[in-house]
Order: sequence, then structure tokens, then C-alpha cells
Amino acid sequence: MAKDEYQAREFKVIGTRPIRPDGIDKVTGKAQYGADMSAPGMLWGAIKRSPHAHARIVSIDTSAASAMKGVKAVITRADFTHQPEDKANADVLDNCMAGERALYDGHAVAAVAATSKSIAAAALDAIKVDYEVLPHVTDVDDAVKPGAPIIHEGRQRENVPEGHNGNVISRTAFGHGDPEEGFKKADLIIERNFTTAATHQGYIEPNACLASLGADGQGEIWVCTQGHYMVRNVSAAVLGLDAGKIRATASEIGGGFGGKTHVWQEPVALKLSQEAGKPVKLVLNRDEVFRATGPTASSSADIKIGMTKDGKITAATCTYRLQSGAYPADNAMLAAMCGFAPYDLEHVRTEGLEVVTNRPKAAAYRAPGAPMGAFPVESVIDELCQKLDLDPLDTRLQNASREGTRAVYGPTYPAIGLEATLEAAKAHPHWTAPLGDNQGRGVACGFWFNFGGDTSVSLMVNLDGTVSLAEGNPDIGGSRAAMTMMAAEELGIPLDQVRTFIADTASLGQNENTHGSRVTYAVGLATIKAARHAIEVMKQRAAMKWGIDADAIEWKDGAAHPAGDNAGKFPPMSIKEIAAISSNTGGPIAGHHEANPEGAGVSFATHMVDTETDPETGAVKVLRYTVFQDAGKAIHPDYVEGQFQGGAAQGIGWALNEEYVYGEDGRLQNPGFLDYRIPVASDLPMIEPVILEIPNPGHPYGVRGVGETSIVPPLAAIANAVSRSSDVRLTALPMSPPKVLAAMKAK
Amino acid sequence: MAKDEYQAREFKVIGTRPIRPDGIDKVTGKAQYGADMSAPGMLWGAIKRSPHAHARIVSIDTSAASAMKGVKAVITRADFTHQPEDKANADVLDNCMAGERALYDGHAVAAVAATSKSIAAAALDAIKVDYEVLPHVTDVDDAVKPGAPIIHEGRQRENVPEGHNGNVISRTAFGHGDPEEGFKKADLIIERNFTTAATHQGYIEPNACLASLGADGQGEIWVCTQGHYMVRNVSAAVLGLDAGKIRATASEIGGGFGGKTHVWQEPVALKLSQEAGKPVKLVLNRDEVFRATGPTASSSADIKIGMTKDGKITAATCTYRLQSGAYPADNAMLAAMCGFAPYDLEHVRTEGLEVVTNRPKAAAYRAPGAPMGAFPVESVIDELCQKLDLDPLDTRLQNASREGTRAVYGPTYPAIGLEATLEAAKAHPHWTAPLGDNQGRGVACGFWFNFGGDTSVSLMVNLDGTVSLAEGNPDIGGSRAAMTMMAAEELGIPLDQVRTFIADTASLGQNENTHGSRVTYAVGLATIKAARHAIEVMKQRAAMKWGIDADAIEWKDGAAHPAGDNAGKFPPMSIKEIAAISSNTGGPIAGHHEANPEGAGVSFATHMVDTETDPETGAVKVLRYTVFQDAGKAIHPDYVEGQFQGGAAQGIGWALNEEYVYGEDGRLQNPGFLDYRIPVASDLPMIEPVILEIPNPGHPYGVRGVGETSIVPPLAAIANAVSRSSDVRLTALPMSPPKVLAAMKAK
Repeated sequence: MAKDEYQAREFKVIGTRPIRPDGIDKVTGKAQYGADMSAPGMLWGAIKRSPHAHARIVSIDTSAASAMKGVKAVITRADFTHQPEDKANADVLDNCMAGERALYDGHAVAAVAATSKSIAAAALDAIKVDYEVLPHVTDVDDAVKPGAPIIHEGRQRENVPEGHNGNVISRTAFGHGDPEEGFKKADLIIERNFTTAATHQGYIEPNACLASLGADGQGEIWVCTQGHYMVRNVSAAVLGLDAGKIRATASEIGGGFGGKTHVWQEPVALKLSQEAGKPVKLVLNRDEVFRATGPTASSSADIKIGMTKDGKITAATCTYRLQSGAYPADNAMLAAMCGFAPYDLEHVRTEGLEVVTNRPKAAAYRAPGAPMGAFPVESVIDELCQKLDLDPLDTRLQNASREGTRAVYGPTYPAIGLEATLEAAKAHPHWTAPLGDNQGRGVACGFWFNFGGDTSVSLMVNLDGTVSLAEGNPDIGGSRAAMTMMAAEELGIPLDQVRTFIADTASLGQNENTHGSRVTYAVGLATIKAARHAIEVMKQRAAMKWGIDADAIEWKDGAAHPAGDNAGKFPPMSIKEIAAISSNTGGPIAGHHEANPEGAGVSFATHMVDTETDPETGAVKVLRYTVFQDAGKAIHPDYVEGQFQGGAAQGIGWALNEEYVYGEDGRLQNPGFLDYRIPVASDLPMIEPVILEIPNPGHPYGVRGVGETSIVPPLAAIANAVSRSSDVRLTALPMSPPKVLAAMKAK
Repeated sequence: MAKDEYQAREFKVIGTRPIRPDGIDKVTGKAQYGADMSAPGMLWGAIKRSPHAHARIVSIDTSAASAMKGVKAVITRADFTHQPEDKANADVLDNCMAGERALYDGHAVAAVAATSKSIAAAALDAIKVDYEVLPHVTDVDDAVKPGAPIIHEGRQRENVPEGHNGNVISRTAFGHGDPEEGFKKADLIIERNFTTAATHQGYIEPNACLASLGADGQGEIWVCTQGHYMVRNVSAAVLGLDAGKIRATASEIGGGFGGKTHVWQEPVALKLSQEAGKPVKLVLNRDEVFRATGPTASSSADIKIGMTKDGKITAATCTYRLQSGAYPADNAMLAAMCGFAPYDLEHVRTEGLEVVTNRPKAAAYRAPGAPMGAFPVESVIDELCQKLDLDPLDTRLQNASREGTRAVYGPTYPAIGLEATLEAAKAHPHWTAPLGDNQGRGVACGFWFNFGGDTSVSLMVNLDGTVSLAEGNPDIGGSRAAMTMMAAEELGIPLDQVRTFIADTASLGQNENTHGSRVTYAVGLATIKAARHAIEVMKQRAAMKWGIDADAIEWKDGAAHPAGDNAGKFPPMSIKEIAAISSNTGGPIAGHHEANPEGAGVSFATHMVDTETDPETGAVKVLRYTVFQDAGKAIHPDYVEGQFQGGAAQGIGWALNEEYVYGEDGRLQNPGFLDYRIPVASDLPMIEPVILEIPNPGHPYGVRGVGETSIVPPLAAIANAVSRSSDVRLTALPMSPPKVLAAMKAK
């Protein structure tokens, strides 16, 4: 793409703040979420779950449940007769329905479909499971100790060297240079361990689906997910079906944040439907969401950074152990890739260790792995600045990655915006505002890759000249608005002439999940390309009508204009006029684009936070918060700001309060929003978003993803503020009042 | 298209008879029809209808209904604030909800949405309408008489010469030569009037929809229809909305036969939803279907045909008057185009007069107009043969249209199959089988145009290599099976690797209704083209992998094969292997095709029927029935045979029993299947279908439409059989026992 394309362009729609197109349906209650779909003859599904963290399933007696009136299907793992060859799909199957062993508190062991929810619940009670309880481990550091119970004895491991026990299921490593040499040049080296807790994505809508699968392997699934293609493809692979025989439709979604990028209950619902011969609705309750779907991984990191007196980082290393839960995840790799990504380092090495435990499989959570990657890095850099009396923003600027920097994870950066965010932070009034007693100000940086992924878009010009845009990514953050704006911009027509719809899997080619901050970039790119394709078709139609060559036509302001030698020969023909003659000039007008684009631009942020620590209770209050982030180009600035604010809010909760608490018995003690504390409005100040726009050369309008980077800096930013307000360095999240108080007392 | 393409081709899938892909869902009750969809918070809609055939609406008092608990919206015409400029759409609006006058028994005058069906019904009762009853006319011949009540006083008429009253709303004329000259050469001229009754399409599922429309003009409609694009486009135009803001999804359909190619209640449901702010389900009952949706037109035709002693038709003329109901239709034009289409005539003139009456607007019914067009033509030719002692098959062969014939409606025929059907009929054992007392054998020919129409198809190669095909035409006759077969044939993969889905209007470009026998031809053509597009993409992917040019690759047996100089250099790469690498070779693989193809091949049939007339009761029993029809190419012969049989069955009902009976008061007296008699299984013999395949050069596989022609010949074929069994010439349908008995007694 020509770099000057976005620079030369004057936008008419992009950058404005129109009201959201999905707003009225949502505020009037008409929008349909996962549990809102029904079908004639529908049954209710329910899942029986293990009360043990680790147990051998000796036997399951379903006879009493099967005999109950109104019970139409009872299934256990034995009913899943297809065994996926692919290891990842085999894990999904085992996670959906336990095989020989239940591997965590909440692991599914049987399921029923019945004519009512109450009958389904009674049928679950009637299923008798005989367990042999086995030793368990739920903490990531306990799991790697000698003598820990091994979750998957004998399982093949990936790149794990000698010396690690069997729970270390994979190892990845990144970096360059020779850290040992680098450390020799340091004036100060800090070496510490940091831990983070497992946290919930905090989505409000529990997982839900309505599934219908016939004896012929043809089926439909209506599902609340971040990726209905993923649900279709994985469910088909798990059940041994053809993906093309299943139509998956995404409902509206009450939050996902990565938690809905995985398959949890959908194959169970499909299998129940096939057994019962009826559609089955399966809606998890909050307890099930907490116990049996994935939170983020907890982590433990051993970090070492060396710095010269004048602030140059000479070397850095970090080993990240991330708790995968019962099945391998890949958060450790991402932590090891992201932690040092903001810095231009000569000598750096990281490694990521995935550690299996008796917990539900860890899921993605907004920039998965990156907050755990950044927390130790940004904490230790801050401590080095404190001890060497250096300015934390200047020191970061001094070491900042820039165009040409070789990233820790390998590539060399093109134009990036980290320095711009640091400069903006320095120049912002927040940085020099006065602080009171027990108050401190922290800063931290964060990074996320962003990516492209398989994307398919169709743009239809209807007979009345209005435009329907079909994309295949569930809209979790306002992407329908963004796509509508990009289509209108490209076609040169008013925004209200375009509506964007989320298509089902039977109507468009493959679409990667709504994740990785990919949608505004990749789907936006495909939307622009599809619009250009439709414009080419419309130029041909006008050319046919005018009897001139299509190349001699220019498209502007929503109309075909004769150009060159033909300029002025005919009045412009608008999209509505061209649509009106479409049937007689070749048929329907549409543009299509399928691609897996590779030009997603990385995104950086700098966060600045003021906290006040209560010396008597240890409670940390967030007083002021400012987010500086590079958006590439903000299509709809309201939504970009919302992403900045939302990520910061989630990071604040992660830093201060949120935590999955497992008891000695290996069971989750706080499976609900009463005992699992996410920030509420009164916990948060206004979070000020500052949008920077360093165009991404890989997108015609310069768009970068913005959704994830904003959750990366808060953990360390707040720890750094707390350190400067109360002179204690907290290394274990959450920084809840008892921990802060204990640290202050110890000091 | 190269004529030899289909001739040279050896098919693997086409022409086989696999089980229908929509079968299991339908027989297990999982298929969802129009009334099967629900939504949270949904209301029930109901429509209040005029009890008068013609009345001025003096006032409507909705206050009591609006005040009822549970009533969420009450609307009358005053609530439809948009007045469509287009005359046809203005008529649709007026038909949906009466304006100043109710024009027929059953015409909608108000509608409600309420929280239950019973409250909705009570609210209808609470609406008080003050009518001033006006004179009415419901019979087409009465309507054209001097002094008849004029339905649309002062309305602009199309091409109507002096001498016709205001109910003759349009006139069309066709033909060539000079009939007066031709009649001079005839040895025998027969001149008669023929009438046919209005008949119902006989679909089992009443019209139904679930509509949701927001204050922002964005909406969704789930609807039982033959064309959800048509429902969207017309409803939007009627309500003054943008088509692109409405997503219409077609349900499964319990029959349509043309009756569901129009908008009836959908704008009312949308408007109720917008007023109430909730989704509204509106399901007509059978009484409403009969009284207020369209049957076919009744007709009256004045025909004159001259023939020489040796069977040459020297001239022919016919004036068709078709009863439009309250708003103009276009059946008269189609009757005037089709009636003489099977014959190669030097001198022929037809005219079609549309006559408005106080009945619901006439709808399409399988080959609309053509049965009324053929009935007088085929009856009089038969009578001429009887009187001139000529063989009815040989005489038809003698006068038959063939390649090069100038059709009565203008064009010159390419290769057609009429002679083949007549020859097949002559050669069939049925023709020479013995007949008993009171038994007779009749033959008749029929014609239907078939057409193309706007068509959009997308074909997706999923990541597992299975294929999803998206088309936009509701499947009323097995078209999903046909499309699946054509896609599999073209891609060279097993049938079970493809599933065809009906997409909603937001996911594919414009699609013309499922009508005009267009789907297997036009959607099939687009499917083949979309498959070829996908093959091109797959060849490129294989080329990328192999590092050779895509032009050097041949696609066969579902795989890319290196060809030419590269032949044998690499093992073939199957569709599954190419799909598996699609993400890394450019992204999703899909093929698309949009077109309005012009090569639909006309279709002819010859029917042969044996009847026995009971001399005591006048009851006519159908003893044996054989259909000879040109299918071009039968994709799935079972379905083609089903079309042949179904059309014949409907034609038998039309010929013998079916009739809308209007009383002196202008009200319909038999609005239900108890009093409106369609043939049941015991009324019918096995109908033997004989498929002839004269390839249509406009389709790669030679396909012609087959769905409609089969209803054209039965009316005359049975009248001809009755004439030969009981020596009475029936000219007024239905040939019910009283009429037959009266005719025999008169003789």
C-alpha cells in the first residue's frame, strides 16, 4: 500500500463520532444475546460437574436420570465416539467432557437434555458418579516443585529441557545478545520474583448456545462467542463432523475480552441435540462460568535487569511460568514475547514455561500473557529508576523501541508510536500536577502485537442503492460502526446508507475470531477492498450505459463521473442510479474480499496513574488515570477511547482486587461476582484517554488495533504508584489491602 | 457457452437420485417454518378485515382497543405515513391496509399487536369501523359490462382503447400475420368462449412472519416466502425505509406455488413492531389466506381458430379477460403470450385484458396465466380434430413450434423440445391402450417461458475442505439438492462434502424470487460459475505452493494437478490439502457469482389423460395420466418427476373441482380446505412422468426450468378426454359433476 495514501487523504466520515448503529436495539432490549434464541420443541441442557480438583472417574450410573419423565438424552464421555487425531482438539474434547479423570473442580462429567430446566437439574442430581480422589495442585509454583502431583503423566512435551517436572508442558524462548556480558556493564542489577493471580475476563453474559444437530451430521448453532467460525470448526473437529454441514450464527455478545475465543460447552449441546433429536439450549450459570470456563493464567516470573547509572539498560532476562490449567495453553509464550517488547535492548533473553495444574484451562484475556509479561519488567525498571534517581519517563524514552529496533521476539519494527506516547505523557499536565500525602504517581508502558487473520467480507449494493455489508466477526467493541464508516468513506456516500451485519458461517468465507485487536484493521481492510471491488463493478455498469470504457470513469462522491476525454459528456451517475439499472446491466452488484493480511501494526501505550494508599487499612485508591496510546488512525474516536478506558479499568481490577481463590481442597472459593471483586464505577476515576495517531503503513487509513494494549501497563503502573506513595514494592498481585498493609508493616 | 460443453460431458453426480439433504430435518420436525420463530418480548399481531366486498370507510374508532391491557399497538392506514411514489408499491400498501375504501371481503382495515393471541383477538373485536357499503362486482365478465361498479374511478389505464369500461385496467396484444386472411383459408373455424375459475395455490402453510423494526428504521424479518429479497425490497419501499437496513431471512416453506411471491402482511407486521417497540409475530389463519391473499385469476376467453381439412391451422385469435382482483395484475398478458406458444402460426393475434373486481388481488400460481392461455387453445384444436377426424397428436406435430419458429409473443425459438414430447407421447403404450365404456383419452400441450433473473451465489471452501454454498432462493422444490449436486459435480468432490444454505438478504446480493422456474437454471448457473471461480483461486494456491504458474495447473477429480510441462512433477493436491494451507497462502477460499442470465430455455410438455365419466352423476374419474416434458437436463430426476406430477395434480384439481365461490353479497363462501376441494390421493392415479432431455444451450449442463409447464396442459387435456368419453365439450371450469351432468342432459 502506498504510504502516502492515508497521508494525502481528507476523510469525511472517518474520525467523526456518529451514534452507534447497534444502540437502539440494545437499549430497547430487542438485541438478542446467547440465551435469547429458542426453537420449537427445544430442550434444556445441563451439565454435571466434578466436585473434585483431581479424581479418577470409577463409574457413572445414568440409569435413574435416563428413566426420568421429560429427560430426552443423558450423555457421558462414552457417547463421544469420535476421538480427534489433532492433540489440541483432543484436549478440547477432554475439557468439554472428562474422560478417565476429572482434572479440576467443575470439570464436566455428564450432561442431560430435558423438557424443562427443573427436570434437567433433577436429572443431574440423579446421576451417580463414583470418584477415586487423587492428589491435586492448583498453584503454578507448587506445580513445578519436586513431588508435585503430575497432571498428565507421560504426555509428550514441547522443547522442555531436563530438570523440569512433568507439569512443565512446553517451553519457548526469545531474545538476542549475551545477557551475561550485558549484566557486567550494569551499575545496578535488580533480580526479583513477581506473581499475578488468575483473573476473570469479567464479561457479564454467561456462555450460552442453542444447538441442533441431525442424525445426518447437519446442524445449526446459535451461540454467544467471539468467533462462530471457530465454534463451528472446532466443534466439528471434536465431534468428527464436516464443518461445512454446520451453520453457526453469532448472537449479540455481553462481553468476551478473550474469554469467548474458545469452545466450552458447544460440542456438548450439539451432542445432546443429536442424541435427543431436538434442539437443545445450554446456558451456563455464573458458578459454571467461573469454575469451568477459562480465566486468564496466574503467573510467576523471575526477572533480572541491569542498568547503568545514567539509565541505559544493559541486559535483561526473565523466566515466565504461566499456569495453563488442566490443558496446555500458550500464554507463557506471549508473556515472553511481550514483556520487553517496548525496549531497544542489546542483550535480552526470555523464556516461557507452560505449567499444567488442576484448574480449568486458562483462556485468553485481552492481550493474553502481555500483562504478566509487562508487570515484572515495568516494575523493575521503575525500581531501578527509583534507586538510581532517574526520571521514569525519560529513562523509558532513553531505552524505547523505535523504527529499526530489533524486537525481543524477533522482527524489526517499522514506524511505531511508543516514543510518541512517552513524549505525550511528559507533556501532559497530569505529569506535573501536585501530589498530596500518601499519594504517588506511577507510569508504565505496554505492548501488543495486533494481527490480521483470515477475513472475508461481502459488500452488497441493493436495488435501492443502499448498501449491506456482511462481515463475519462478532461485534464486541463497536466494529459494526467502524465498518459502516469505512464502507461509507470508501464509497463516498452518507453513513446512513450503509448497514453492517454479522453473517453466519454459511454465508461468508472463513473469519478468524474477534480477537488480537484484529477486527478494525483486518475486517476494515477487507471492507475497503470489497468497496473498491464494488466500485469497479459500478464503473463497468456506468460505462455500459454510457457506451464508454470503464477505465475512463472516475468514482467520487458516491457517483461515477466520466473522466479524461469524456469529462463532462454525461452527468454523474449516482450509486442509486446505477443500482436501479443493475438488473438490466448484468445483475446484482457486489464486492468481495478474502485475505489473511500481514500488515497489522503493533501498538504501544504509556499509562500514568496517581494513587493514594491508606496507611491504616492498606487500601489503594486510584485518584487519576491517563492513557496515552497509538491508535494508528481512530476510525470512531469514541470507541477507541472506550477501549483505552476499558482496558485500564480491567487492569486496575487485576492490580488491586481480582483473584481466583482456590482452597486447600482444590476447589474455587469465589465463583461469582459477589466474592470475586471487579471494579465498580465508584472505584474508578475518570480515565482520560489520549489518542495518538502514528499511521500503520499496512492499512489504507493507517489503522492499528487498539483493543488490547490498554490492559498491559496498569498492573505495573499502579504498583509503581503505590511504591512511590508508601515506599513498598509490591510484587504479588492483587495489591489488596491486607497485602499492602502487611508490606507497610514489614517495612 | 459452447454448445458441446454439456454434450461432451460425462456426469458423475448430475442425473443421480441422492436422498434429499433437507429431509431429516423435515421428517423429524426440526425444520423451522414461518410460524416457528420466536423472540424475547415478542407480541402477537392480528388484522381486522372488512366484511364487505366494497365499502367506504367512514370512521375507525380504535380507542377501546388501545386502552386494553396487553395491547401494545393499534394501527390503521393513518399510521402508514409514507406514501410510495411508485404505483405498484402504492397498490401494495393499499392492499396491506385499506385507505378510504375497503375493496374486497377480507381487506385489512386495522391491526393490533398484543401480548397474547387472545388479547389481540379481543382487541380486534373492540375496534369499531363505520362502513358505507358500496356496489360491488366479483365476476370478470360482469365487471366489463356497461353499468358495472367501477373499482378505480379515474385511474390511469395502460393501452386500453375506447369501448372498454373503467374496470379494464390494461391491455396487451401479441401476434403477427393477418388472421382475417388466414381464416379465409380455413375449412373449419371454431369460435367459443371459455372460462376458468379462480383457484388457490393449495399451499399448506399459511403466510407467517416475525418482524422487528426499530425507531431507527433498522429491522429484521423472518418470513415464509418465495422471495425474502422481494419481501425486504417491497416492504422497505412501502414503508419508506432503506432496503439495506432490513435483514430478511426466509423460513422453510410449506408450499408456495406462486402464492408467496408477493407481499401480503409483512409491512403490517413491521409497522406494528415499530409502533410497539417489540418484535411482532403475525400468522394468518386459513380463512385469511383465502379471503385476503391472492388466488390465481379467474378468466374468460373468446377464441377463434381456423383449420384446413388436413389439419393445418390457418389463423387464430384470442381475447383473454383475466380478473385482477382489486389491484392490477399481469396474468392477462401472460395468458396472451403463452396460449399459442406451442404452435407455428402464420396468422395469430392475442390480446390480454386485465379486469379489476372486488376480490383480493390475484397472485401468481404456477405458470401464471398460462393455463388460462392454453385451455381454450388446446380445447378448440381438439374439437377441430374431432370434427375433421384428425389425430390430435399428429395434428399438433403438424403445427408444432420448432427451432426457428417465430413465437406468438415475439422471439424466434432456438432448439426446443415440443416435437420430442409429442413423438414420445405417440410412441408411449398409453396412447394405444384400450379404453372402456364412458372412457376417453385426451391430450394437450403446454408452454412456459422460464427465466433468469437477478442471482447471487457464494461458494466457500472451509478450512477442512468441505464446501458451504450460499444461495438466496427459498427452496420450495428441492433446489438445495440440485445446487449441492451441481457444486459437487463442478468441483469434482463427493456430494456429501457440500451443503447448500439459503442466505439472508444481508449476506448475498440481490436474488429474484423463487419463481418462473428459474432456480435450477439461474442459481445452478451461478453455482457452477462460483465453483469455477473457487477452482481458479485453488489453482493459484497450489501454484504458489508448487512455485509454478496457475495456468499450468489442471483441476480434475477434486484436486489440482500439475499439467503440461509440469505434469507428474508433483502429486495432485486435493481440495482438503489446499484448504488446509489456505490461511498461509492468502486467506479464505471462496468463489462468487452475480448475474442476471438471459439464456433460460423455454419448456414444453404434452400430457395424456384417460378419464371415465359417470353417466348418472357426471363425476369424472382420472384413470391414467402421463406427462411428457422436456427438462433440458434433469439434475435430480426424482425432483423433476415430482414437479411433473405435482403440476399435473394441481391441474387436475383446477380442471375438475377447485373454485373460489363468491356469493351475491360479494363474500367468499368457501374460505377453507373443507369447502374448497383440492385433489386428495384417492382422487389421483399414479401420474407417470416421462423426462425428455433436449439441452438448453444457455446452461452448461443444458438445464431448463421444469416447475411450471406441467400445470398448463391438464385443464384442456381433461376437457378433451371428457369430450371423448361423454361427447360433451365443457368450456367452463371446474368440470364438476353438476356441470358435466347438466351438459350431458342438455345433449
